[in-house]
Amino acid sequence: MLVATAFVLMMTVPALALFYGGMSRSKSVLNMMMMSFIAAAIVGILYVAVGWSMGFSGDGLVFANPFDLLWLKGVDTADLIYVMFQMTFAVITVALISGAVADRMKFAAWVVFVPIWAVLVYFPMAHMVFSCSDSALICSKIGAQDYAGGTAVHINAGVAALVLAVLLGKRVGWPKDTMRPHNLTLTMLGAGLLWMGWYGFNVGSIVFADDWSTSEGAAANVAQFYSETGRTFSNTTLATMAAILGWLLVERLLHGKATSLGAASGAVAGLVAITPAAGAVSISGAVAIGAIAGGICAWAVGLKYRFGLDDSLDVVGVHLVGGVVGTLLIGLFSTSDGAGGVDGLFYGGGFGSLGDQALGVVVAVLFSGILTAVIALAIKVTIGLRLDPDDEVNGIDLTEHGESAYDLHTGVGGGVSSGLTAGALPSMEGARK
Amino acid sequence: MLVATAFVLMMTVPALALFYGGMSRSKSVLNMMMMSFIAAAIVGILYVAVGWSMGFSGDGLVFANPFDLLWLKGVDTADLIYVMFQMTFAVITVALISGAVADRMKFAAWVVFVPIWAVLVYFPMAHMVFSCSDSALICSKIGAQDYAGGTAVHINAGVAALVLAVLLGKRVGWPKDTMRPHNLTLTMLGAGLLWMGWYGFNVGSIVFADDWSTSEGAAANVAQFYSETGRTFSNTTLATMAAILGWLLVERLLHGKATSLGAASGAVAGLVAITPAAGAVSISGAVAIGAIAGGICAWAVGLKYRFGLDDSLDVVGVHLVGGVVGTLLIGLFSTSDGAGGVDGLFYGGGFGSLGDQALGVVVAVLFSGILTAVIALAIKVTIGLRLDPDDEVNGIDLTEHGESAYDLHTGVGGGVSSGLTAGALPSMEGARK
Amino acid sequence: MLVATAFVLMMTVPALALFYGGMSRSKSVLNMMMMSFIAAAIVGILYVAVGWSMGFSGDGLVFANPFDLLWLKGVDTADLIYVMFQMTFAVITVALISGAVADRMKFAAWVVFVPIWAVLVYFPMAHMVFSCSDSALICSKIGAQDYAGGTAVHINAGVAALVLAVLLGKRVGWPKDTMRPHNLTLTMLGAGLLWMGWYGFNVGSIVFADDWSTSEGAAANVAQFYSETGRTFSNTTLATMAAILGWLLVERLLHGKATSLGAASGAVAGLVAITPAAGAVSISGAVAIGAIAGGICAWAVGLKYRFGLDDSLDVVGVHLVGGVVGTLLIGLFSTSDGAGGVDGLFYGGGFGSLGDQALGVVVAVLFSGILTAVIALAIKVTIGLRLDPDDEVNGIDLTEHGESAYDLHTGVGGGVSSGLTAGALPSMEGARK
Repeated sequence: MLVATAFVLMMTVPALALFYGGMSRSKSVLNMMMMSFIAAAIVGILYVAVGWSMGFSGDGLVFANPFDLLWLKGVDTADLIYVMFQMTFAVITVALISGAVADRMKFAAWVVFVPIWAVLVYFPMAHMVFSCSDSALICSKIGAQDYAGGTAVHINAGVAALVLAVLLGKRVGWPKDTMRPHNLTLTMLGAGLLWMGWYGFNVGSIVFADDWSTSEGAAANVAQFYSETGRTFSNTTLATMAAILGWLLVERLLHGKATSLGAASGAVAGLVAITPAAGAVSISGAVAIGAIAGGICAWAVGLKYRFGLDDSLDVVGVHLVGGVVGTLLIGLFSTSDGAGGVDGLFYGGGFGSLGDQALGVVVAVLFSGILTAVIALAIKVTIGLRLDPDDEVNGIDLTEHGESAYDLHTGVGGGVSSGLTAGALPSMEGARK
Repeated sequence: MLVATAFVLMMTVPALALFYGGMSRSKSVLNMMMMSFIAAAIVGILYVAVGWSMGFSGDGLVFANPFDLLWLKGVDTADLIYVMFQMTFAVITVALISGAVADRMKFAAWVVFVPIWAVLVYFPMAHMVFSCSDSALICSKIGAQDYAGGTAVHINAGVAALVLAVLLGKRVGWPKDTMRPHNLTLTMLGAGLLWMGWYGFNVGSIVFADDWSTSEGAAANVAQFYSETGRTFSNTTLATMAAILGWLLVERLLHGKATSLGAASGAVAGLVAITPAAGAVSISGAVAIGAIAGGICAWAVGLKYRFGLDDSLDVVGVHLVGGVVGTLLIGLFSTSDGAGGVDGLFYGGGFGSLGDQALGVVVAVLFSGILTAVIALAIKVTIGLRLDPDDEVNGIDLTEHGESAYDLHTGVGGGVSSGLTAGALPSMEGARK
Repeated sequence: MLVATAFVLMMTVPALALFYGGMSRSKSVLNMMMMSFIAAAIVGILYVAVGWSMGFSGDGLVFANPFDLLWLKGVDTADLIYVMFQMTFAVITVALISGAVADRMKFAAWVVFVPIWAVLVYFPMAHMVFSCSDSALICSKIGAQDYAGGTAVHINAGVAALVLAVLLGKRVGWPKDTMRPHNLTLTMLGAGLLWMGWYGFNVGSIVFADDWSTSEGAAANVAQFYSETGRTFSNTTLATMAAILGWLLVERLLHGKATSLGAASGAVAGLVAITPAAGAVSISGAVAIGAIAGGICAWAVGLKYRFGLDDSLDVVGVHLVGGVVGTLLIGLFSTSDGAGGVDGLFYGGGFGSLGDQALGVVVAVLFSGILTAVIALAIKVTIGLRLDPDDEVNGIDLTEHGESAYDLHTGVGGGVSSGLTAGALPSMEGARK
């Protein structure tokens, strides 16, 4: 659990920051990475302040008793690791959204959006899904299975990304100008670290009896540990591998080449899709879910050009679509010996589970969509969401943070640079020649 | 075991991808990284399909009952973690080979080579070494010690790399044109992550009694855990450190400077050499093995220029040579209180162990060499191994994947790029001026 | 403990190497990374040779019986993991110093400085703090609390960095010429990996009873594990988050923008400050310590320009200042139910604890400062500390290691480079045009 928590935190900083950073342009990579860093800092502290209390202090339809455990008052230190584990989920969900707003969202607007969205959208969603208290809407009332965050994390973040992308509008020049990834080695590194960290996500979500007071208890713990982690770990691994292959195949059929961006995105799509299903399906189900999600997402990321939606780094195409695919496919592939104890359609369980899953998806989409729109509109009409177009063209790193990411030439080979802003900026480089 | 498995998987994606990617040229880094990603995806699923069954479903000289446990039919979920652990070894062994074929192997040929080689070469080798069933050739019949893959992983991959490099031929311009690493920070990052991941490799290879049903059993487990992991962990650490120093010293004597590429390569050489020996030797033995392997490999990587072999990223010089050195030195340095229970030559055990180790090396070299040659020749005469020379010169990233890794200038400082392929390509940059 | 040790080793190679490497200039990034790699190799082997013996073989004021356990003679293999854990602390402390000497310290001087400083300064300091033997100066005689290295690691390295920076003098052109980070994505990656690794640092520092021989013992172990790791893990996390916010706030107030370098540095400042306090304070204390340390360090890193001290990568401003802040604030925020069992000033404990902490700081500063000065002066008057100014201007990577980090253009798009040194060097690029 401890290692799992460190892994999941690492998914946001640095893994997601790198994955997104590499896909953005060189003039906005630092802003992209900063959105993950600051989201981690703000949401982490807010989680301790109110998040745990809203999510896990008791029963309720959409949230628990929000003021019962403020600032973890009364929480036993032995439970802190689980609090931290849940905190890392909040952190990455918020950070995931940032991929849709690349290049053009005011940093101040992001800093305001993050805590409000966490409190009004994520913390209730975590209660509805992860607390699974008696009245919790998605987990108990609807009875939708979500092992580690298909609805609460990926659909939630994907819908919020969609809403923000719509309200922010397209980047200057999009889609006429290419806005291709500036550094795909960072993206592949990020994807690899996300993969490793995701084991924390899925495997850490196993809940143990933890009775060590008798030898029988200890032996049972160890046996259960091996069995459940074995299932979750192999499902996560195989779905990811199948999704890489699924994505690359569809990409090759549609566009003629298998790309490295496709391999990295396919891995993430597979991880997203298996997240809700990791404990519910067999290895065959995991491979099927991964392959289907990889293929569908590879096709879905192209839709943004058709709909004119500048979902800059494909948060909608990967997280919303992948999350929906994974959540629904539980209705087909879940087995009764899995975590949910329910047979899906393909295992003779009828349409019941599929219906529950679909309803869970609808609730998550509506809840996240409506509330995100309200929050984002409120920010839009007050401090504004969008950067000045000139500042956007000049680069958000420079205008919002006063930095540029790279200075690969200054001073190399004997030259001494002569000014504060010298470096990677072509205009200055021209001046140096 | 769980963390160890995640660590070893991380060694391939992203660690090895970065280590190799940084050493390749900027026009082929994505292809290099893709070879690791796709190898992971293909071999991983194949391992579940047939690999575990061929390796571990029973006894046999070179493989087990290949059809007994297809698709893990009948495998207990509690054993899945160990299956996954073994899978990660298959994945990295195949990926290691890619370093020898940089810049010039058709991606389609790689995609065909990977599954065939895994089934015909790696899965049997894993049976012969890791299953250690009664009749297993290398482990039982010959009795060669191999803790975590000196023969099955490193010699195996190194020999296959040698064969492929010979059959592919030299890159256009090699060795006259420099083909120096395009990004050594990636290589050093990759080396660091490989080092961390390698603890999964070596420490995860410890097999435990795992009797938790009595207090005595639990206490014995914990005691054994501390003792064996202590030995394996410190041997792995110290050999790596000694190899860095050994490599840098020899490099400085031969070429006048200690390089960062040398430090990164030395670390890997030490890790390779201690892999078969991690449980067999004392800390003095580990330091000696590391220092010797580091020094010999530093000298060996220069031989390719003498033999005209374009082993592009030194897979032969590091993995084959390092694997042979480590496997043989067990014959000198192993101690009877180690995992193998045998004294080596320097501890009064005579030449017996050294002979077993040498025979193990010979069998691994012949088995891998002959079968790899057959597979590669079959691909060569059918779909072909080698990229078109024009495509190679233009860059395999662009021609095989339609991408280029970096776009560090587009749009920075106000410019807006004007086409799909703009970016890091000099010809286009020239056009923009 | 095992994973913790791997994590802490990863902090030096590659995390610190990347964090520092990204902040240095592109002509000196490899030297910067090499200083971490070679420090790891040298100090690691030296630790086994004499470090453990000097630190932990028995009682003493500033060191134990230095010759009792040379080369770990007589150390049980079951204790090796703890030896390795302590070794990783030695490794990172030495590597931390390198940030102050960027661009200008002879590599040979660093290779000589590292082992001497480890033996004369770090190993005794580890005894005084971490062994906590009956007569150990800082831990027992003074009674200063230091959970995981505020004095022994961060103040120690920070003071040594200050002394070296003074004795080396300023870089050519500093501070008139900008020497801004050449690759901030590396720095943010390094900061993220440091953050993950730091859990090994702080959480691994918990000492357990480890009685598994009875069911009660086992249950007590698990309970204690959850409780202590929960406290340490959440304190480490929250302090880091608060420090990011504290740094960015002060930075914005002082300079108008919140930078990514600030976010990365803030995270490290928070981790430094909570290191001595991770077990001693409540979550409120942790947030306060993080926020205060982040804010003070953000201000402190600007002082070097006022004092004309070229502390190149802010080792003094972050590690010395952060270490002092964290160590002193224990005197205010520690609680009696924490690891030290002492109430600080704000919890009704009076000035006693604060006095002990301050005395610990003074002893650490004097011990490290005086001995580092003696060692560095001795090297200065013999082989010399400083690189030739021409070599410094040409770039230490090229002159000391014969390498340059990047070759992002050679051969891309069809060109074939024509010489050994072609690539990222502007002079050669000019020639190619």
